[in-house]
Amino acid sequence: MDIKAYLKEKRELIDSYLRTYFENSSLPSVLRDAMKYSLFAGGKRIRPVLALASYEACGGEPKDILPQAAAIELIHTYSLIHDDLPAMDNDELRRGKPTNHKVFGEALAILAGDALLTEAFFMMTNTNPPLPPLSKGGQGGLFSPDKPVVSPVLQSAVLRVIREIALSAGASGMVGGQAIDILSENKQPDREIVFFIHLHKTAAMIKASVRIGAILSDSTEDKIEALTTYGENVGLAFQIIDDILDIEGTTEELGKSSGSDNNKKKMTYPSVVGLKEARREAFDLVSSAIDALRVFSYRANPLREIAVYLMERRT
Amino acid sequence: MDIKAYLKEKRELIDSYLRTYFENSSLPSVLRDAMKYSLFAGGKRIRPVLALASYEACGGEPKDILPQAAAIELIHTYSLIHDDLPAMDNDELRRGKPTNHKVFGEALAILAGDALLTEAFFMMTNTNPPLPPLSKGGQGGLFSPDKPVVSPVLQSAVLRVIREIALSAGASGMVGGQAIDILSENKQPDREIVFFIHLHKTAAMIKASVRIGAILSDSTEDKIEALTTYGENVGLAFQIIDDILDIEGTTEELGKSSGSDNNKKKMTYPSVVGLKEARREAFDLVSSAIDALRVFSYRANPLREIAVYLMERRT
Repeated sequence: MDIKAYLKEKRELIDSYLRTYFENSSLPSVLRDAMKYSLFAGGKRIRPVLALASYEACGGEPKDILPQAAAIELIHTYSLIHDDLPAMDNDELRRGKPTNHKVFGEALAILAGDALLTEAFFMMTNTNPPLPPLSKGGQGGLFSPDKPVVSPVLQSAVLRVIREIALSAGASGMVGGQAIDILSENKQPDREIVFFIHLHKTAAMIKASVRIGAILSDSTEDKIEALTTYGENVGLAFQIIDDILDIEGTTEELGKSSGSDNNKKKMTYPSVVGLKEARREAFDLVSSAIDALRVFSYRANPLREIAVYLMERRT
Repeated sequence: MDIKAYLKEKRELIDSYLRTYFENSSLPSVLRDAMKYSLFAGGKRIRPVLALASYEACGGEPKDILPQAAAIELIHTYSLIHDDLPAMDNDELRRGKPTNHKVFGEALAILAGDALLTEAFFMMTNTNPPLPPLSKGGQGGLFSPDKPVVSPVLQSAVLRVIREIALSAGASGMVGGQAIDILSENKQPDREIVFFIHLHKTAAMIKASVRIGAILSDSTEDKIEALTTYGENVGLAFQIIDDILDIEGTTEELGKSSGSDNNKKKMTYPSVVGLKEARREAFDLVSSAIDALRVFSYRANPLREIAVYLMERRT
């Protein structure tokens, strides 16, 4: 299969959903501009695409879970905006463009992040068919519900998805990882701490992205477990590769300052085990990820190829 | 009825739920400390108490909706932490204590806010009876589900609550109001802009708090509409009283710097219409709020008394 064509097609599905969503909205314009600036800055939509591919592996039709998949990108984008803030990583460049606070100021960057995170949970409740409308005065929102019936199975699945994403994005997951990352700067590199940071800051949300595909398709236990292993391993490998690229890539290739981890005395995998060993571990993780998918048919081929693609990427 | 005793009893219900929740959690300890510092800084829990009182007015038993009601306090707390940041209102004192970033630093304050907001959505999914457990690798969280059956009605209600809260807390609600508030500093006071800020920054979440009581009790349309009117009017009156207290109260009474709105050139109701007219409008709003409750029996007496109490408060 042509994995690049697959990724492009799925990325366009997500982009098109997000564009329509934000066109229809009546948010205060400056805030909406700040949200859209980072959301449409050219992200690869890896997390939502993993959710779609996972749903497809379980026999589903990707376009049916666009709200839940796209919501993950809102959370990813908010995390980048807040991570780049002067009080955090103090980055000026992201995806080749000035960071959000450089363009809109710190106050609006904080608020744009808060708004994207909150909007993600609203977006996830856009079930298909939609929830029945409530009386005036609060509902309606960006996408008005207009059909009366929701299957109880779908409702339960969407509640589980919200639970999964909140857990993986919050203090027990991504935010917890970022807190330890910030607190570990300038400290002696330590393998266990680096593992904790990668597992929480990056792998938790990637694992959740893959898992929601299985949850929404009401998949069997063995498939959910296989996808959980796949997601965690790919998530860890993804971050190790990121660390390696930060050392080996150029600023132009990366769209952000290369060597910035080292300049900020960040704890990274290569700083603990060396470049060669880091590369070997990423390879092992990707192998284990693909191996976990043996319970799946050809329908999981996109997931298999994405794992290889993410390891071989240069940006 | 003794409204002070009622408020105390309900506040203790919320506090006890929140204390147990955060005792059981295994979050990174510094981050958890930062979250708890602001969450247990002595807030009056007005929003969750309004949700409980509204649920009670619709015939429900308040303790059944503690997760959804308490989650609102997490969102309120996150908003205070972020509003106090140097890039926003730059406040050093809140509820008589140093603000979060003064104690934990800006990075952790931003993350504690992010974590509280995210945790709120996890907390809301704690249905009773709980969702069936998923396989390992992501679920479990702070409160592990252990019973197998959830009524489809409850699931649908909880999804509506998540939708309602996300809409009221995000760019279309509270965050949108805060953005316009920040952007309006130092501008010519304007009645329409002040109204927009109050409606979005404060009234939206107070209205949502009242509405979720009705939504979770699967109430009739006329009662939801009555509670919507009540919530919006009480929310607007609440903010006008806040503005008045900022002028008339002392720093000691308020637990935050008095006169700070004026010092920051904030647009407030008194700055647009004068103190006397502002007081009259608050009174009219509270009267309309109580009037809207005429479709309810004595069960809505707490809501009626809370409206009066909030208007007559000195802090």
